[in-house]
Amino acid sequence: MKAMIIQAPRKPLVLSDRPTPKPSKGEVLVRVVATAVNRADLLQVQGLYPAPEGSPADIPGLEFSGVIAGLGEGVTSWSEGDHVTGLVGGGSYAEFLTVHARALSGAPKSVSLVEAAALPEALLTAYDAIVVQGHCRSGDALLVHAAASGIGTAAVQIGRAIGAHVIATSRSEAKLARVLALGADVGLTTTDAKFADAVKKATEGRGADVILDLVGGAYVAEDIRAAANKARIMLIGLTAGRAAEVELGEILRKRLTIQGSVLRSRPIEEKIALAEVFTRHLLPLVERGSLAPVIERTFTLEEAAKAHELVASNQTFGKVLLTVGEPGT
Amino acid sequence: MKAMIIQAPRKPLVLSDRPTPKPSKGEVLVRVVATAVNRADLLQVQGLYPAPEGSPADIPGLEFSGVIAGLGEGVTSWSEGDHVTGLVGGGSYAEFLTVHARALSGAPKSVSLVEAAALPEALLTAYDAIVVQGHCRSGDALLVHAAASGIGTAAVQIGRAIGAHVIATSRSEAKLARVLALGADVGLTTTDAKFADAVKKATEGRGADVILDLVGGAYVAEDIRAAANKARIMLIGLTAGRAAEVELGEILRKRLTIQGSVLRSRPIEEKIALAEVFTRHLLPLVERGSLAPVIERTFTLEEAAKAHELVASNQTFGKVLLTVGEPGT
Repeated sequence: MKAMIIQAPRKPLVLSDRPTPKPSKGEVLVRVVATAVNRADLLQVQGLYPAPEGSPADIPGLEFSGVIAGLGEGVTSWSEGDHVTGLVGGGSYAEFLTVHARALSGAPKSVSLVEAAALPEALLTAYDAIVVQGHCRSGDALLVHAAASGIGTAAVQIGRAIGAHVIATSRSEAKLARVLALGADVGLTTTDAKFADAVKKATEGRGADVILDLVGGAYVAEDIRAAANKARIMLIGLTAGRAAEVELGEILRKRLTIQGSVLRSRPIEEKIALAEVFTRHLLPLVERGSLAPVIERTFTLEEAAKAHELVASNQTFGKVLLTVGEPGT
Repeated sequence: MKAMIIQAPRKPLVLSDRPTPKPSKGEVLVRVVATAVNRADLLQVQGLYPAPEGSPADIPGLEFSGVIAGLGEGVTSWSEGDHVTGLVGGGSYAEFLTVHARALSGAPKSVSLVEAAALPEALLTAYDAIVVQGHCRSGDALLVHAAASGIGTAAVQIGRAIGAHVIATSRSEAKLARVLALGADVGLTTTDAKFADAVKKATEGRGADVILDLVGGAYVAEDIRAAANKARIMLIGLTAGRAAEVELGEILRKRLTIQGSVLRSRPIEEKIALAEVFTRHLLPLVERGSLAPVIERTFTLEEAAKAHELVASNQTFGKVLLTVGEPGT
């Protein structure tokens, strides 16, 4: 099969031939139709974020849409030709991949199979952080940073779909207009990493109940100021930096929770649980049109380097996809 | 009634006459037998930590043991003469106090009624943080800082009683010996606020699953280093300072939770829930001798200033009590 291979840190990805993997007991073979670019892929290509154990060391790619092309021993839940989508720890920049038969989901019928590749990482990262771990419920004030990103656009739509009051931040006014169109109630431009006063104002002084922070750095101290009593600050990205100076007194007084989360390195039992969350809690919202893939642009697999450049530019709105194979029928 | 009154910030407490409070509908009147000194009382006397709403503004005191001396309208769960213990938002440095009839517990039979005043704040703060919020279970590694303090000695005993592997820190070697006698598995002296390597060593490299931090300041960055994957760092005190510089990457990578908690300001429904925790989950352990009051010294209410001095000296092991009235029969 063809795959985009990491030759060496900071070297460009190279299209190479690799043996097509064989599904082991309990696994399926997926013919990949499309994958998407995640920031983790960029870090991995730079040599800064090695693949987790059990994933191909030199093929990036954390999510896919595709078609079941083979069944390992004992697998009865899928048939060849089924349209599927899911997360992997790596290896989706390739024509084929293997994955545990319970760690993927049926693809939604309401979007194309290529578009479906925009969904797993963004929707699951956001839903897991906001709802599963952050316990966001209807009427809660949900603050979403970097709301124009893949995860941000997913988070805004999820917040809207579950009845939360969505406050979205972005450094770009033009992007904020599009975020509001996706369902955010309030949009805040945050060129100076200051937003606590505006969040307080937008919540009649209460502050945000759940904060989805994919920025980190100086945002964390401001999150603490913007938080309501007993709020959950979910930390899932660090584009603004890995160090933060925080005011512990406020964490105690407001009884705050600050929680870090990543999906990529989770063990198989948690990947299966995520696939179940996708099937049970997210697919129905996709099928009814409450959650739509937000796609900046689609490249071919061979154009992965150009796709990475575009993601690195921060000029995107939503996801950047890579098409790999034909959707078929 | 007699009560110790805050006249003005940083002025000594004064024994004064106050009207005996009357129990409202659903409340009981408690004749206080003993109360205990908490660090919050010292801050309150300095004017740094005003009483929460609904509590006497100028009478400190967060916990008590005593005797039911009157019943408000509709109260059938207690009888005059019952021995009780519980938490209040303030007001226990007095001969009488009123409290919601469901926000207190029966006193244990296995310790004297004076000794029982050493239990509510220490046991509930520790149990709520470690077990209720921190989900510590048997086999988990529990790291307890300031283990010779009132809360620390309670936490070590609780960890032992629920089957956790208890790692205790103290700045004093002499105190650590006594902490080990209380049931800690490992004792670490932490004169330089460095403990992560020793915690890793004591857990075969895994780190601590639950960390009870009543120190704050530089301890928090070290907690993050000492934490196992998916650990809960419970922040309940800040004797070492209110600012911390933290490494966010580690919080994400290990999927850590940092959570702040205070009891004093909690609303009535949460105070009731705490009383239920005391009755259901702590009293049985006290009655069977797994949890014992740890008392440094007992003063009279009139000697409150001397008791505060002793607590401020950091030379104590466990709680400092104030006797108020006769235990009776």
